[in-house]
Amino acid sequence: MSKYLIGIDYGTLSGRTVLVNADNGEELAEAVLNYPHAVMDERLPSGKALPPQFALQHPNDYLEVLRTTVPQVLKQAGVEPASVVGMGIDFTACTVLPVDANKKPLCCYPEFADEPHAYVKLWKHHAAQPEADEITALAARRGEEWLPIYGGKISSEWALPKLLQVLREAPEVYEKTDRFLEAADWLSAVLTGEETHSAAFAGYKALWNAESGYPSNDFLTALDPRLDGVVGTKLSTKVCSMDQIAGRLSREGAELVGLCEGTPLSLPMIDAHAAMPALKMTGDGDLMMIVGTSTCHILNSTVRKNVEGICGYVKDGVIPGFYTYEAGQAAVGDIFDWFVKNCVPARYEQEAAEKGINLHKLLREKAALLRPGESGLLALDWLNGNRSVLVNANLSGMMLGITLQTKPEEIYRAWIEATAYGTRMILDAYEQNGIPVNTICAAGGIAQKDAMMMQIYADVTGKEIRIAGSTQAGALGSAIYAAVAAGIYPDVKTAAEHMGKADKCVYRPITENQEAYGRLYAEYRALHDHFGRGASGVMERLRGR
Amino acid sequence: MSKYLIGIDYGTLSGRTVLVNADNGEELAEAVLNYPHAVMDERLPSGKALPPQFALQHPNDYLEVLRTTVPQVLKQAGVEPASVVGMGIDFTACTVLPVDANKKPLCCYPEFADEPHAYVKLWKHHAAQPEADEITALAARRGEEWLPIYGGKISSEWALPKLLQVLREAPEVYEKTDRFLEAADWLSAVLTGEETHSAAFAGYKALWNAESGYPSNDFLTALDPRLDGVVGTKLSTKVCSMDQIAGRLSREGAELVGLCEGTPLSLPMIDAHAAMPALKMTGDGDLMMIVGTSTCHILNSTVRKNVEGICGYVKDGVIPGFYTYEAGQAAVGDIFDWFVKNCVPARYEQEAAEKGINLHKLLREKAALLRPGESGLLALDWLNGNRSVLVNANLSGMMLGITLQTKPEEIYRAWIEATAYGTRMILDAYEQNGIPVNTICAAGGIAQKDAMMMQIYADVTGKEIRIAGSTQAGALGSAIYAAVAAGIYPDVKTAAEHMGKADKCVYRPITENQEAYGRLYAEYRALHDHFGRGASGVMERLRGR
Repeated sequence: MSKYLIGIDYGTLSGRTVLVNADNGEELAEAVLNYPHAVMDERLPSGKALPPQFALQHPNDYLEVLRTTVPQVLKQAGVEPASVVGMGIDFTACTVLPVDANKKPLCCYPEFADEPHAYVKLWKHHAAQPEADEITALAARRGEEWLPIYGGKISSEWALPKLLQVLREAPEVYEKTDRFLEAADWLSAVLTGEETHSAAFAGYKALWNAESGYPSNDFLTALDPRLDGVVGTKLSTKVCSMDQIAGRLSREGAELVGLCEGTPLSLPMIDAHAAMPALKMTGDGDLMMIVGTSTCHILNSTVRKNVEGICGYVKDGVIPGFYTYEAGQAAVGDIFDWFVKNCVPARYEQEAAEKGINLHKLLREKAALLRPGESGLLALDWLNGNRSVLVNANLSGMMLGITLQTKPEEIYRAWIEATAYGTRMILDAYEQNGIPVNTICAAGGIAQKDAMMMQIYADVTGKEIRIAGSTQAGALGSAIYAAVAAGIYPDVKTAAEHMGKADKCVYRPITENQEAYGRLYAEYRALHDHFGRGASGVMERLRGR
Repeated sequence: MSKYLIGIDYGTLSGRTVLVNADNGEELAEAVLNYPHAVMDERLPSGKALPPQFALQHPNDYLEVLRTTVPQVLKQAGVEPASVVGMGIDFTACTVLPVDANKKPLCCYPEFADEPHAYVKLWKHHAAQPEADEITALAARRGEEWLPIYGGKISSEWALPKLLQVLREAPEVYEKTDRFLEAADWLSAVLTGEETHSAAFAGYKALWNAESGYPSNDFLTALDPRLDGVVGTKLSTKVCSMDQIAGRLSREGAELVGLCEGTPLSLPMIDAHAAMPALKMTGDGDLMMIVGTSTCHILNSTVRKNVEGICGYVKDGVIPGFYTYEAGQAAVGDIFDWFVKNCVPARYEQEAAEKGINLHKLLREKAALLRPGESGLLALDWLNGNRSVLVNANLSGMMLGITLQTKPEEIYRAWIEATAYGTRMILDAYEQNGIPVNTICAAGGIAQKDAMMMQIYADVTGKEIRIAGSTQAGALGSAIYAAVAAGIYPDVKTAAEHMGKADKCVYRPITENQEAYGRLYAEYRALHDHFGRGASGVMERLRGR
C-alpha cells in the first residue's frame, strides 16, 4: 500500500494543501483556500480603522484552511486518512500573534476584538519601523555580537520590533499575553497539543541562535525595562532543531483535519525555505533565488562567516548540516510593475491590446531584440532601497545613458539588467568571503515566465541558471519534511532525492554576452560603490527631504 | 507722414514678415509663408533619397517669401511703398549654399538638380560631424588661437565642416562654386546687387574674427590641401561690421518685393540675435535666453574673456559696443517632448483628453502642486549631450532618486528642474569669470507658455526672469536694425528704446524655494562634475558602445 503525505503552504493570501506520494513526490491532489479576512490593512472586522503600515490577519482563517483543504485533497485523490503517514506546514515569516496560556489568540476575546494589537501581525506589517531602528541603534551602540549575523540591521518585519510595538502601544494586550508566537508554531500547538518552536523562525526572525539563545536580558531591559524576564515567558525558550518533530496529531488536531490521531507533524518551515528540498537544493553551495516582487536568495554552505549585508544565517535552519544564508533584493518584479504602470505610453498599450498580450510581454518581445549594452543605458535597481549587500533603505533608483532616442523597451531591459547586476553583487559578496556558490536554481513566477530575463541572469552572473521544476515548491517541500518526520527517509537530503523536482530547464551563459555584461557590471559596481558606500551621499540626502 | 519698416524673420520652416511703425515699433501687419519645400531630410525634389543626417532647403523658397509676404503686409496695412524707409532680415545660421559668379545657386542648374551638395545646407544638417571632429582635433593639435573663442569645440553645424563635406563628397560642386554663402548674405546680394557678408554670421559660424580673419591658409591646407586659397575666393573676405548696411534695393530687388529702388537694407542678423533689441536687451550684462527645443543664451558684455564651454563671442556681433557671448543647452523642450512621447502612461492621456488639454499641460498642472525637492528626484539634463559648459556630445541624461512611488509628473518636473540647473551652471560660468549677468529675459514658446517652469528658473537662478514682450521678436528686431540703416535712429540702442517691447511679466525668486533649490543645485553640480569632468567616464563609455 502506498504512503501519502500532506504538505500545507501558508502564503500571504491563501493556504495551499497538496497530497503527495511518498515514493516519488507525485502531487495527487491540491486544494487552495483564500483567507476569508485576507490582509487587514485598512480596517478590523468590526470596521475600526487601522493606522498606516498595519498589516494584520485573523488566526481563524488558518484553521479554516486546515478544516477544509485537507479533507478536500483526501477526497479528490480517494485516499484514506490511514494512508497519510505525515503532515508538514510552511508559513510566511515573521507572522506573529499573542495567545493566552491555553493558546487562545487574544483577538478571539470579545474585549480585544477592537484592539489591532491583539490580532496576527503579518510579515509585511511595517508599522514597527521606529522600534526596529531603536533596536538596531542600541545593538550597534552596545556592540551586540548577534547584530553582524543579520548584516548589521534589524528589520521592522521581525519579532522583537513587533513585540515592542505591542508593549508600547497596547500594554494591556502585552500584559495578557502568555506567549508571543509565530503563527506556524501556534498551528503546531493547535494540532498536537504540545508547544514547540521551530528554530528556523526563531533563528531568522527572533534574533535567536543555538549557541547563545535570544538577546540577553541585559540588552532587553536596556531597550525597555518592562521587557525584563520576557525570554522564557512571553518568548519561549523551547526552540527545537530540525532533528526533532513538532509532535503528533492530538485527538482534537486529528478531528480538525480529518486525519488519524498520532500522525507525525514535522517542524514548520519558513515558506521560502521549504522550497529548497522540493527543488533538490540540498547540497553545499546550492543557491535558490525566488524571483518575485522582490528576490530572496537562500544558500547552503558548510562555511560560517559574517558577510556584509546578508540578512542572516542559521545553522541547520533549512537543510541539516549547513549554515543557510539569506540575502535579498528589495525590489525586482515590483520595479517592472511600477514601470509598466507609470512609464509606458499609450501606443504601447494599444499595440499590446492588438496583439492580445500584456504590456510586460510586449516590452519583453521588443527588449529581446536588443544586444547587451546596445541602448547605452545603465541603472541602479534600488527603487525600494538596497537590502543586500548595502542594507540601506534610503538609497534609490538611478538610470543614466538616457538620450532623446531612448525607447521604453530599452529602459525596461535596463531595469532587468540592473536586477541581474544586483544579484551578481550578492554572489560576489559570498564568493569573496570564501563561501562558494555552485548551483543556482531560480523559482517564482518571473523565473517561470521570463526566458529573456533568465538568460540575462545567466549572462551577467556567468553561471547556469536552473529553473524550478515545481511551481508548488513550498507545499511539496513541507511534504518532504513530513516524510522525514514520518521516518520514511532518514534525512531531508535523501527525501529530496526521491521526492524533489529538479529543474525543468537550464539557461547557460553565452560567451559573447557574458563579455559585454562583464564590462557593464564593472560600470554598475563603480556606480554602486559611488552612491552606496559613502563617496556620494546624495541619494540619502534627497530621500531625507 | 509716418515712416514704416519691413522686418523679415527667416525661420526653419517659414518666413515671417512684419510691417512696423518706425516711431513706436507697432506691428501693423504680418504675413507668413511656409517654405514649399520645407526641410528636405529624406528626399530631393526629384525623389532621390538623401543620406542620414542631411537637412537641405531650396533657395527659391526664400525668394518666394520676399515675393509674396512683402506685398501682402503693404496691402493689409494700406501703406504705400514710398513710406517704407528701410528693410531688414534675420536668418537661421549657419544655413549655407554654393553659388556661381552670378549668385545663381548651383542647385538651380539642371546638371546639379540631383546632387544633394548643390542645395542649401540648413543649420541642422548634421552630416558633417566627421569633418567637424577633424577640424577640432587639428586645431587643438596645432593650438590654433581661435579655438578657445568657441569653447574648444567646432560644431558640425558651422560653415567650414559643411564646406569640407562638399569638397570631400561632391568635388564637382566644390569646383563649380564661386562663393559658399550664408543664405542671409545671398539674399542681400539678390536684393541689392552687391555682395556683403554680415560679421555676425562670419563671427559665430565661420571662425572669422575682426582681428585675424578666417583660419590661416596654413591651417586650411593642413586640413585638406585642396583648401589652399579658399579664403578670398570661395569664402569672401568682404565681411562688414554693424556700422555698415548691406546696401540699397537694386531695381531688380525692388521689383521682387514691391518696394522702391534705393530702399536701404540693413546687414542681416542671426535670427536669435535679432530678438535682442526687440526685447530692449541692449545693455551691459543683459542676457536673453530663447527657450525652445534647445535653449540659446545670448549675453552682452564689455568684458572680453574666454569662458569654458561658451559657444563663441563676437565683438559688435549683436549690439555695437559689446562682446556678445553665446552659450547653449542642447536639449530643453526636446526633453519634455521625448518624455511625453515615450514615458507617460495611457491613463494620463485619457485624463488629458477628458479635460481637453494636452499632456504637457496636464503634467504641468500636476507638477505645479509639488514642493521643490518633494519628489526626491534629481536629473542631469544631457539627453542630447552637453553644449555649455562641458561641450561634450557624448554625455547623456541621468535621473536618480527613483522609487516605487515615483509618479510621471514628478519625473517631468525633475527634467524641468535639471534644465534650470543647467542654465544656472552657465550663469555661474560667466560670473565666476567676471562677466556679470544683470538682467535675464526669456523668449521663445516655452517661456511664453510655461509659468511653472519660469518660476522654477527664477527660484533656481535666484534672478528675476522677465518674459519677452513680443512673440515676433525676430522680425521686429530686423525692423529695428532697418530703422538704423534708414538713419531714423542713430544707433541700435536708441532704436530699441523707441521700438522694442519690454517684458510682459516678470518672475521673481521666492525665498523659500530659492533655499531648497540652492541645496539641490549643489547636488546637481556635484553630479555634473562627477560625470562631466572626468571623475567618472561611464557616460562616454556607454555611448561609445
